[in-house]
Amino acid sequence: MRTIYLNSQYLPESEAQISIFDRGFLFSDSVYEVVSVLDGNLVDFDRHIERLARSMAGLKMLHVPNRVDVLAFCRELVVRNALIEGVVYMQVTRGNPGDRNFAAPPSDTVPTICAFTQQMALVDRPEAVEGISVVTLPDKRWGMAHIKTTQLLYASLMKMEAKALGADDAWLVRDGFVTEGTSQNAHIVTADGVLVTHPLDDQALHGITQVALKELAACEGITIEERTFTVEEALNAAEAMNTAASAFVMPVTRLDGVQIGNGKAGPVTQKLRDIYIEFARRSAI
Amino acid sequence: MRTIYLNSQYLPESEAQISIFDRGFLFSDSVYEVVSVLDGNLVDFDRHIERLARSMAGLKMLHVPNRVDVLAFCRELVVRNALIEGVVYMQVTRGNPGDRNFAAPPSDTVPTICAFTQQMALVDRPEAVEGISVVTLPDKRWGMAHIKTTQLLYASLMKMEAKALGADDAWLVRDGFVTEGTSQNAHIVTADGVLVTHPLDDQALHGITQVALKELAACEGITIEERTFTVEEALNAAEAMNTAASAFVMPVTRLDGVQIGNGKAGPVTQKLRDIYIEFARRSAI
Repeated sequence: MRTIYLNSQYLPESEAQISIFDRGFLFSDSVYEVVSVLDGNLVDFDRHIERLARSMAGLKMLHVPNRVDVLAFCRELVVRNALIEGVVYMQVTRGNPGDRNFAAPPSDTVPTICAFTQQMALVDRPEAVEGISVVTLPDKRWGMAHIKTTQLLYASLMKMEAKALGADDAWLVRDGFVTEGTSQNAHIVTADGVLVTHPLDDQALHGITQVALKELAACEGITIEERTFTVEEALNAAEAMNTAASAFVMPVTRLDGVQIGNGKAGPVTQKLRDIYIEFARRSAI
Repeated sequence: MRTIYLNSQYLPESEAQISIFDRGFLFSDSVYEVVSVLDGNLVDFDRHIERLARSMAGLKMLHVPNRVDVLAFCRELVVRNALIEGVVYMQVTRGNPGDRNFAAPPSDTVPTICAFTQQMALVDRPEAVEGISVVTLPDKRWGMAHIKTTQLLYASLMKMEAKALGADDAWLVRDGFVTEGTSQNAHIVTADGVLVTHPLDDQALHGITQVALKELAACEGITIEERTFTVEEALNAAEAMNTAASAFVMPVTRLDGVQIGNGKAGPVTQKLRDIYIEFARRSAI
């Protein structure tokens, strides 16, 4: 049984419980981060903590947990659960004011902070070679998709819908343009070898792996265009890929039933996955 | 201390806790209802239960609780908490599959069902005469606003924003048209005495009080137009009002700082509020 972190306590997972009056439960008033773990170390930790603080600021949530404390409980969870490869999930809510009210709780309401680990294979995965199949579905999420809140119902429904359609996952489309996956950023490589990735606006999450990808691609001399792309453009792309903390760089080799490239991970995607994993191993703390 | 209902148990509110792995907490995979209580009886109970089932069907949530069971625990909570006037809040989540995964949990995952009471004055309220002040704010909610999910973060943020702006509440505006309030349906009465109310589409909640209001207004010979209205039209309306289970019919007498009507509850609003309360008392079970 895993050990869970909840409000400064380490608990068996069966005892990790929150009040039904927690605003995370009643109002989805809650943000989260997923940090990948390689060799028992936390990947790109600081950028995740910075985004957590940005998410909270965007919602005017007070009481941002400090980096040292978060690092300490993340490391403690990794140790206690003997996690070598997988993720640490952490969530911060506006806390439990003791009753239900749409208005702001008292400013001294203590946030709820919980975290847990999930063991999973991140490096050696067959999909990293074969790629995954994706279907496009409409993006009906709220208009502040850059903030990493737990309002994940739509993304989860689209994940379910994709599976029901026989695909592995979905890309969401708004006004003809791909915004992102259900829990991944979406990118393509054009016939000219240009990496096209969504701009940092309010329509898609500002991915931590996406940021690293851009830096690493630039070092490789790959031209990067930060702009939206259409489904049509993606269908005609040389390569397509997802990025996420729990997927690293993942080739997308089928889109709406159409094969992308030669149906296997393309050379740019493979290269970016390799150098991302190298970066992740090297810089993890 | 209140007694809470949670998964067939009656508990002191301090013990009403759910797992952090509940999909209601991690994914906002959760729907709710608020039923008003007058004279210790449940108002318009059957329509709330019907909407709960519609919300769950819209999300492909299985295991819809049956009417008899829900009525039993709602009544039991009213008795145990000696509630005369206020609301019963109930929430149903897709349950706790034991870990975090965007994909659908096993179909035999038991839903989490909780409910609690809130005591509040519903009939005798100064705002029912003076009216409330409302500011218009952009509607950035998801595209399935007719489903009553706990993805209430945006509505809650706009309630906070309205208070910060010195108003009582907000009306949300999409493409120039008022969709609804933060937790109420929005209506106006034109200079010709026509009650204009939002159509039943995916842009606004299908209010139970709104439905009753239309029926009662029709009996009074009031002409009803089910259509969207602009902020401009609302500013020039003879009357404006909100409806919600916890507000019944509530006059809106100030919109974006502009007085509506004579600044007090108008005759149509007052009449509708009176006959709604009469209907609620008469039909509550």
